[in-house]
Amino acid sequence: VPLHRQIYDELRRGVLEGRLRPGSQLPSSRKLAADLGVSRSTVVAAYAQLVTEGYLASSLRGATRVGDRPPEAALTAEAGRRPDAPSVGSPALSRRAGATSSSWPVYDVVASAPARAFRTSVPALDVFPMDVWGRLAARRWRSASPAALAYGDSAGLPALREAIANYLTRARAVRCTAADVIVTAGSQSALDLAARVLIDPGDAVWMEDPGYFGAAGALAANGARLVPVPVDAEGLDVDAGRRLAPKARLAFVTPARQLPLGVTMSAARRAALLDWAAETSSWILEDDYDSEFRYATRPLAPLQSLDRHGAVIFMGTFSKVMFPALRLGYLIVPPAAAAAFTTARLYVDFCPPYLTQATMADFITGGHFERHIRRMRGIYQSRRALLVRLLEHHFGGDVAVDAPDAGMNLILWLPEQVSDHAAAAAAGAAGLDALPISRFSIRRVRPGLLLGFSGIREPDLRHGAARLARALRPLWAGAR
Amino acid sequence: VPLHRQIYDELRRGVLEGRLRPGSQLPSSRKLAADLGVSRSTVVAAYAQLVTEGYLASSLRGATRVGDRPPEAALTAEAGRRPDAPSVGSPALSRRAGATSSSWPVYDVVASAPARAFRTSVPALDVFPMDVWGRLAARRWRSASPAALAYGDSAGLPALREAIANYLTRARAVRCTAADVIVTAGSQSALDLAARVLIDPGDAVWMEDPGYFGAAGALAANGARLVPVPVDAEGLDVDAGRRLAPKARLAFVTPARQLPLGVTMSAARRAALLDWAAETSSWILEDDYDSEFRYATRPLAPLQSLDRHGAVIFMGTFSKVMFPALRLGYLIVPPAAAAAFTTARLYVDFCPPYLTQATMADFITGGHFERHIRRMRGIYQSRRALLVRLLEHHFGGDVAVDAPDAGMNLILWLPEQVSDHAAAAAAGAAGLDALPISRFSIRRVRPGLLLGFSGIREPDLRHGAARLARALRPLWAGAR
Repeated sequence: VPLHRQIYDELRRGVLEGRLRPGSQLPSSRKLAADLGVSRSTVVAAYAQLVTEGYLASSLRGATRVGDRPPEAALTAEAGRRPDAPSVGSPALSRRAGATSSSWPVYDVVASAPARAFRTSVPALDVFPMDVWGRLAARRWRSASPAALAYGDSAGLPALREAIANYLTRARAVRCTAADVIVTAGSQSALDLAARVLIDPGDAVWMEDPGYFGAAGALAANGARLVPVPVDAEGLDVDAGRRLAPKARLAFVTPARQLPLGVTMSAARRAALLDWAAETSSWILEDDYDSEFRYATRPLAPLQSLDRHGAVIFMGTFSKVMFPALRLGYLIVPPAAAAAFTTARLYVDFCPPYLTQATMADFITGGHFERHIRRMRGIYQSRRALLVRLLEHHFGGDVAVDAPDAGMNLILWLPEQVSDHAAAAAAGAAGLDALPISRFSIRRVRPGLLLGFSGIREPDLRHGAARLARALRPLWAGAR
Repeated sequence: VPLHRQIYDELRRGVLEGRLRPGSQLPSSRKLAADLGVSRSTVVAAYAQLVTEGYLASSLRGATRVGDRPPEAALTAEAGRRPDAPSVGSPALSRRAGATSSSWPVYDVVASAPARAFRTSVPALDVFPMDVWGRLAARRWRSASPAALAYGDSAGLPALREAIANYLTRARAVRCTAADVIVTAGSQSALDLAARVLIDPGDAVWMEDPGYFGAAGALAANGARLVPVPVDAEGLDVDAGRRLAPKARLAFVTPARQLPLGVTMSAARRAALLDWAAETSSWILEDDYDSEFRYATRPLAPLQSLDRHGAVIFMGTFSKVMFPALRLGYLIVPPAAAAAFTTARLYVDFCPPYLTQATMADFITGGHFERHIRRMRGIYQSRRALLVRLLEHHFGGDVAVDAPDAGMNLILWLPEQVSDHAAAAAAGAAGLDALPISRFSIRRVRPGLLLGFSGIREPDLRHGAARLARALRPLWAGAR
C-alpha cells in the first residue's frame, strides 16, 4: 500500500471513529510530513483525496480542517432521522419486465452445455472449420488500423453488408443491395430491432400459433398485443388472421420453413399475405432462420422478393450456419425504412463489433461460407434420415414422425392422450432434450416433441433414440 | 447452370409467358427426359421444384399439369383487380422510431473515421497492445470446445463476470460478486437493458441537464418521460429534481465525472440522491463511463457502494479503456433484480459473443487491463496538460478552459454572445471535431465546446489548437 494511501486510510478512520472532531484543524502538510518522515507531496496527495471525498475541507487561507459531516455519517444520519423509513427492498421492476420474466420456456435447455440428444437447432459445431476462421481473424487483426478499433457504422461494416447482400441475392433470391442490410447480433436482436422500429405499444401483431417463442417474447417486450393466428399445412392462415385482427400492424411469419411445424408457406398464402399487407399498410416480418438447409428442392423465393410495397422485412441469422456464439445476423429492410433502423440501433447497442464482422465478411467472400453450408447439408441430411429410421424402429406405429425434407429438427407426434410437457420431462429425466410443441403454442395443439438432429453425432442419435423410447412408452402403455 | 435448373427455368418461363396454359397436362417425366436426352431424375427434380413453388400441380394419378394460377400471376392479378389500390410506399414506422429518428446529434462525428482533433472520448487506439490481445484471442480460439461455440449464459461468460467483479471491487470499491454482473454490448446496450427492466412507458425519469444524449435517447426510446434536472458544481441538483418530479421512477447520473461538465458529485448530493431514492422507491442508474481516468486523486466511492436499498444500478464500459469496436460493457445489479435483467436480455440479443468475452477475461486476469489503464493515464494526463497550455496560448483570455483533473475531454467555454453550434460548424469547416455543449442540453446553457484530447496525438493537438483559434476567433472578433 503506498504511503499516501496509508495516511489517507489513517486520517479517514480518525474522522469516522470520532478521534478527529468536525471542524478541528489538521497540522499543515509540511509539519505532518516532517512528523511522519515522508515527503510533503505524499501528505498533500492524501489531504487532496480526503477533501475531494468530503472528509476534510480546506479553507481559503490554506488551512485544512475536518469536514462538518463525513460522507458515511451523512448517510447514516439521514436514514436514522426518518422514522417512516422506506422499505429496505429494491424498487419495483417495470411491469413489462415482470410480464416477460418467466416466459422464456427453454432457456435452461438452450443455454446449458454441452449439447446432448436431441437439442434443437444446434449446428454440427464439431465440424466447423475452426482453423479457417482463426486464420482469417488473425489476418484481419494484424492488419487492423487504429480507426478499425473505434466506433463503426451502426448498420454494420460495409464489407460485411456487401457480402451478405451478394450471398442473399445469389442463394436466396432476396432483392437487395448492401444499403438495405442491417447487421445485427443474431436473429434475436434482429427481432427486437424490428419490433422497436415497426410497432408501438398496444399494436396488434399476427403471431404464428404454434410459433417461435423468441419472436413472441421480443414483440411482447416491445408492447405488441399478440394475436395468435393458426398455422396449417400451407403455413399461416391469412383468412383467420383477417378475421381475428384485420388491422394488425405486423405479421410475423417463417414462410420458408415454419417453426416449429416445418411446413412451407404455399404460393397462394404468400400472395394472400402480401395482399393483406398492401391493403392495410401493415408490415410483414419474414424470419428465414434456417432455410439454407433444404435437402431435396430449391428454397422458394422469399416474400421479400415478391414485395412491391416495401412492406416486408427479411431477417436471417448466422447462428445456424456458423455457430451461435458468433452473435451475428441481419435484417434486409426496404429503402424507405433503412434510416429508421440505423438510428434506432444507435440507442440499442450503437454498432456491431469490428473483428467479428470483418472476419465474417472474409469467410463469405472467400467461399468458405457456402462450402460449409454444402458440407453441413450432407451431414444433416444423413443424420435426419438416421433419426427417422431409429424412431420408426423404436416406436413403431405409436407415434408419427414428421420430418420435412429440410431444417435441423423433426417432430415426433405423440398419442393424443399424452401430455407433451410430461413427455419432455420424462425425456429430461433420461438425460435427453426434447421441446414440447405446446411450448410454442397459445391454443391447445396436438402433443408432440421437437427433436433436433443437426448437432447430434450418430452414436448419440442411436443411444438417444433407444433411451427416448424407453422413457416415453410407459406414458401411453398404461393408457391402452 | 445444372440441367434440372435449365429445365425448371424453361418451364417456368413457359407458364409465365402463357405458352403453357393453366390446366394443360405436361409430358410424363420419362417422356420429357427421353425427348431432351437427360436422365429422368433431372426432370423429376425440375417438376418437383415447380410443384413446390406453385407453377405446376400433380394429380393423384401422377400426371403433372400447369397450375391454375402461377405465383407471379396471382400477385399481379390481385394488385390489378383492386381499383382503390393502396399506396405504393412502405407502411408507417412506429411513432417511437419517428420520435428518435433525428435525435442522435453527433452520429456523423462519432462514427466517421479516422479520429481527428478534437474527437471526444476516443481512447489512444494507437497504443493499444494489439499483439497481447491477438495472442490471448488465438489461444482461446485454439482451445475452444464445440460447446463454447453454442449459446452461452445470457448474463455473460462466468470467467468474465468473475474478472469484472474482482476488478470493480478492487479498483472502484463497487460492492459486488460475479453473480451481480451482467455483461452487455457496451454502455449503450447497458442503458437500453436497464431502461427496459426498470421503467415502463410514461414513467418520469430524472435526466442530467446538460447530460449524455445517448442515455436520454435510450431512455426515451423505451418510453421514458424525461425530466431535465439541472447540474451545478456539485453534480445533479437533487432538490430541483424533487421539485420537478418528486415521484420519478429513475434518476440517471454520472457522479464520478459528469458528462459533459466534468464535475464530481459531492458527498452531500450523493447522500441526498440516495435518500430520495429510498424514500420514493426509485432507481438510480449510475453511469461510471470513464472514471478510470483520474490524474490526481482516487475516484470517490460510487453510489453503488453506499446503497442499502438495492436501488442503484452501476454501469461501465470497456469502450473507453479498451476500444469501442470491442462492444463490451457491464451492469452491476442488485441481487433482487438480477433475474429480471437476465431474462430481459434473452429477448434483446440472447447472450454476448463467446470469444470476445473469453479474451477479455484473460486480458483482465493476466494483469494487462490495469497495466494498460496505467499507461493510458500517463498519456492522457500529458495530452491534457498540453491542450490546456495550447488553448491558453492561442485564445488568451477570450475563452475559459475548464479541464478537471480527469477524463478524456475538456470544455472550452466561449464568450456568451457566441453560438456553440456556429462554433462547432466553424471548427468542422476547418477539419476539426468539436461537440457543442448545447447539444447535451435541454435548457439554454452557457456556450462551450467539448474537446477530446485522449485519442489525439501531440502534433495533431498542436496543429488543431492553432487551427481552432483561427476558425473561432472571427466569431467574436466582430462582436467586440
